[in-house]
Amino acid sequence: MKQIYLDNQSNTKIDDRVFEAMKPYFLEFYGNPQSIYSLGAVSKDALEDARGKVAELINADTNEIIFTSCGTESNNLALKGIANALKLSGKHIIVSQIEHFSVLNSVKKLEKEGFEATYLPVDNKGNVLAEDLQKALRPDTILVSIQLANTEVGTIQNIKELAQLTKQNSKAVFHTDAVAAAGVIPVDVKDLGVDALSFSSSVIYGPKGAAALYIKKGAKIIPQLDGGVQEFSKRAGTENIPAIAGFAKACEIAKAELAKNKTHLETLRNKLIKGLQEKIENIYLNGAAAGENRLAGNVNFSVEFVEGESLFLLLDAKGIMAASGSACANKNLKLSHVLNAMNVDVAVGQGSILFTLSKYNTQGEIDYVLEEFPKIVQRLRDMSPLYSHFVKTGERKKAGPGTDFDHDHDHCDIEE
Amino acid sequence: MKQIYLDNQSNTKIDDRVFEAMKPYFLEFYGNPQSIYSLGAVSKDALEDARGKVAELINADTNEIIFTSCGTESNNLALKGIANALKLSGKHIIVSQIEHFSVLNSVKKLEKEGFEATYLPVDNKGNVLAEDLQKALRPDTILVSIQLANTEVGTIQNIKELAQLTKQNSKAVFHTDAVAAAGVIPVDVKDLGVDALSFSSSVIYGPKGAAALYIKKGAKIIPQLDGGVQEFSKRAGTENIPAIAGFAKACEIAKAELAKNKTHLETLRNKLIKGLQEKIENIYLNGAAAGENRLAGNVNFSVEFVEGESLFLLLDAKGIMAASGSACANKNLKLSHVLNAMNVDVAVGQGSILFTLSKYNTQGEIDYVLEEFPKIVQRLRDMSPLYSHFVKTGERKKAGPGTDFDHDHDHCDIEE
Repeated sequence: MKQIYLDNQSNTKIDDRVFEAMKPYFLEFYGNPQSIYSLGAVSKDALEDARGKVAELINADTNEIIFTSCGTESNNLALKGIANALKLSGKHIIVSQIEHFSVLNSVKKLEKEGFEATYLPVDNKGNVLAEDLQKALRPDTILVSIQLANTEVGTIQNIKELAQLTKQNSKAVFHTDAVAAAGVIPVDVKDLGVDALSFSSSVIYGPKGAAALYIKKGAKIIPQLDGGVQEFSKRAGTENIPAIAGFAKACEIAKAELAKNKTHLETLRNKLIKGLQEKIENIYLNGAAAGENRLAGNVNFSVEFVEGESLFLLLDAKGIMAASGSACANKNLKLSHVLNAMNVDVAVGQGSILFTLSKYNTQGEIDYVLEEFPKIVQRLRDMSPLYSHFVKTGERKKAGPGTDFDHDHDHCDIEE
Repeated sequence: MKQIYLDNQSNTKIDDRVFEAMKPYFLEFYGNPQSIYSLGAVSKDALEDARGKVAELINADTNEIIFTSCGTESNNLALKGIANALKLSGKHIIVSQIEHFSVLNSVKKLEKEGFEATYLPVDNKGNVLAEDLQKALRPDTILVSIQLANTEVGTIQNIKELAQLTKQNSKAVFHTDAVAAAGVIPVDVKDLGVDALSFSSSVIYGPKGAAALYIKKGAKIIPQLDGGVQEFSKRAGTENIPAIAGFAKACEIAKAELAKNKTHLETLRNKLIKGLQEKIENIYLNGAAAGENRLAGNVNFSVEFVEGESLFLLLDAKGIMAASGSACANKNLKLSHVLNAMNVDVAVGQGSILFTLSKYNTQGEIDYVLEEFPKIVQRLRDMSPLYSHFVKTGERKKAGPGTDFDHDHDHCDIEE
């Protein structure tokens, strides 16, 4: 059977060149970079060389990069580390409602510890509005964290404007979660004007086990992993040199091939969006239109009269691996917190499905999806009393208890 | 030039079988274990299979294992996670003075947050005495954390006795840092009677990027990385499947070959200790005698009239990679916190050097060390005014400012 992997926001296939770059650090150069004997020196050189390459991807200085184990850790370190470093100046934090759970749940933890948070709404395409941020800023606001791009609907925020607004109207530090963006679209911390930025290896064809937090020179942060003096005493624990070397190679490749990959992804994305819109009636693209502020590889549709989990399962049966946008980490939500914040109609949003493309996907794979997906939708609609009512009467019946799917939604497809 | 790696407490060479076990999860099976499509299911199976093997090494139940990114993270999670979960019952924590910095610095952070800590002394061989623990236990003691084996001097504590004492005299939870022990000596959480236990992959010929915290069923812990629902909602973040699969293979091999490796390490260790004691006068073994409660691969000597850093450098020049026991993570300490707590004389302890052996070391390598090391010691002593005074007069002169070495000790050779 065909295997078409379209869940690249969750995890990407490692680039062969990245794996080759990691190999020597597994097999030959296993010394501790904190030790100054020859084998340690090789690891130390690899670490600092990697730090340079990773910094370069986002136009940071080398010593502004802290390596962590994953995007979730970078976001935890940013939120908790910065808030705690600044708590004597104020206790107010601002984030958007559509942040990744590693941001939202870090903020919830901080709220329990006495911090106060404002959760900014978004418009129906997932944009944070400057005026909402402006209204939320207070004299005691110490930290604003707004993602660069949304993992689920692909909306890219105008971080430059939002960071500038924050600087002009407050003393708050500005952090952005760029896990979905860095390596996919051009990211320049100096141009964006941010103080801190999280990004990760595993979504840009690099290995798991490495991610980074950019923290601007001079910005205060309290380490969240205590122990040794690694990472400028800002993150203790053994440096994972093979993973870090792989991350660096992934950053290098991402930078060199960004334009090429972006064009390739946009071509496939536009073909998929256009094709599905032509072939299936009553489907709605979630997030910004293609060509607007939408991530190159992101396709998120709500398919009316069907349920996302069922779409997901029938796609899987055809070898197409996607993500169900209607379920993420919370059993009680009918919609993901992102679609919910965008005010997507619950009945429609239940049928949402997320395809995230990679540089490895081909035109042929998209053709296959365009052939199979409409058939799957039709098959599910044929079983739906709501759809049959709609076909007969042209009316949309409100979903009752009988059609109110209660699957066990305890997985989260989008990873950091 | 020969390369003899004797810094295995810091990091071990990965076992080829471990690397082979990891490879498919890099190259082929890169699906997210939280996703239920075919590629995700393979990862999920790998994750749960790994959890079983890792649990087996310490005789835990499968669902009592939380995967983390390194030993430091396991210790941070244990200390902060348990203390915060129990803070309504009390705020007193007991640790030993010779814990790893990931334990000690976690406790320091907790003290800043309002917890109170007692740091238990050790005797001159590094043993925590039961009577000291008994005296320290209070009605408000919520957590006792004492390491199973010391990374630097190899002393193995009687954790079974200390845990039992804790249970009999308090309501405190008992955690042990077993990073230096698990996979090297038999470790059985049920027999030890502990509630929580940290252990790691990178010191048992496994990859970096994976470690674990055993937490007994029913014991309370608050996650320190917030985000998704991975690891029973106790540790958010992408599961690092390749590293976890490698860790599991390393545990499986460690368990199967434990007796064989232990004998091999003990043979080499005893040969090295005996040989150096025969060839060099005025050297002192730090920690328990070979044959007593000492880790199989640990050799830590204080060499009088020389400085550990110089020993380290000249050994490195001969291709022998060791660790200097006189410097660890703190610029102002003349001795490591471990030797200091053992009341090692500062003048003598400054000349301490640590060899930690692996299953890959050979008799020939030990012969080479026995040949080169005495020459290095002699060369350094020949330059030492203190030694020349001693030779002439038989008296030990107290080290003055001129011999009071002030190197830049900002590295820590012992990793978790």
